[in-house]
Amino acid sequence: MISEAISKGDRTKDRILDEASSLASVTGIGGVTLGQLAERLGMSKSGLFAHFRSKEALQVEILDRSARQFRAAVVDPLVDEPDKQMRLGIFFRRWLEWIENSGLGGGCPILAAAVEFDDVPGPARDTAAGHYGELFDLVRRLARAARPEADTEALAAAIEGLALSHLVRVRLLEEENARALTLRAFEALLANPPRTEKLS
Amino acid sequence: MISEAISKGDRTKDRILDEASSLASVTGIGGVTLGQLAERLGMSKSGLFAHFRSKEALQVEILDRSARQFRAAVVDPLVDEPDKQMRLGIFFRRWLEWIENSGLGGGCPILAAAVEFDDVPGPARDTAAGHYGELFDLVRRLARAARPEADTEALAAAIEGLALSHLVRVRLLEEENARALTLRAFEALLANPPRTEKLS
Repeated sequence: MISEAISKGDRTKDRILDEASSLASVTGIGGVTLGQLAERLGMSKSGLFAHFRSKEALQVEILDRSARQFRAAVVDPLVDEPDKQMRLGIFFRRWLEWIENSGLGGGCPILAAAVEFDDVPGPARDTAAGHYGELFDLVRRLARAARPEADTEALAAAIEGLALSHLVRVRLLEEENARALTLRAFEALLANPPRTEKLS
Repeated sequence: MISEAISKGDRTKDRILDEASSLASVTGIGGVTLGQLAERLGMSKSGLFAHFRSKEALQVEILDRSARQFRAAVVDPLVDEPDKQMRLGIFFRRWLEWIENSGLGGGCPILAAAVEFDDVPGPARDTAAGHYGELFDLVRRLARAARPEADTEALAAAIEGLALSHLVRVRLLEEENARALTLRAFEALLANPPRTEKLS
């Protein structure tokens, strides 16, 4: 009986998080209000509060859920690719696909939170920074493995940058050739990566 | 008498825009509510409405004002530099300075709006897209002038990207060496820019 009750509570919580993530994807995480969410779910505000202690707790769970989805869509498939150069290329293409369509109905909630909350201290900012820090670490590791002779930090910064400029060109400017252009710049970068300066 | 009245109205409008821009810089443009703004200015909401017909009109003016400030800080000084390669370098450094400290108390309201409103049709989205489109056109022109032999579009995408990844590393991740790293990647990019593919 207890396990059944927990399971029902978990399903409701999942349903709330699904809806909250879709909303955050479109309006940004700051645009998710408990009132609006309750209305979309046909629940009472107090029903929502039974699952999330506060708006901040809900924001953190939305971000953690987005990070899990990003990992499943972009990172997990990399284990099947033994070639380190191919692995970076596959990662980057999957990242662009995520940017173009995260399946949430709008943009990535973590990036939105990163820009929205960079000046607003609190749990949402800390969580977004944690996920971004993890992502940038992963880019550095993949870049180092693919181009061990390069200036890894600078190469990683350039790769991250191409993903972010892709986001603006595809989502805001709606440039039709965005994907082809981003991949051209990516291939050129890997062909001539930043080099570590030699001591003369 | 009439001109005096207009001038007083303009000063009040400027004061409202100053405060609204500071607020937008920290909370994002969606976080600017007329109620909050009225309270910070010690004005009534109806007093605010006398200057801005709607929240959307206010958002558009905040974005236009940020674009004017960006031009004054980053773009206008370029006319003094005749060397086209130097001009791109000066532009990029000034862009990084703007990202680090726009003088508004927080991040750039246009970038915030770009991420916040990319999925929300309306005047704020259109205005942010217009300003971003202009900025990216400028980057392309500067890149073409500095490196006429390069694949201009890909070079411009890489430059924009470095500015955006700098923003995340400096504002969200608070990496202390962000500026040095971004400039290293920028110099490497200009030393080996993406090339237009030769027909074989």
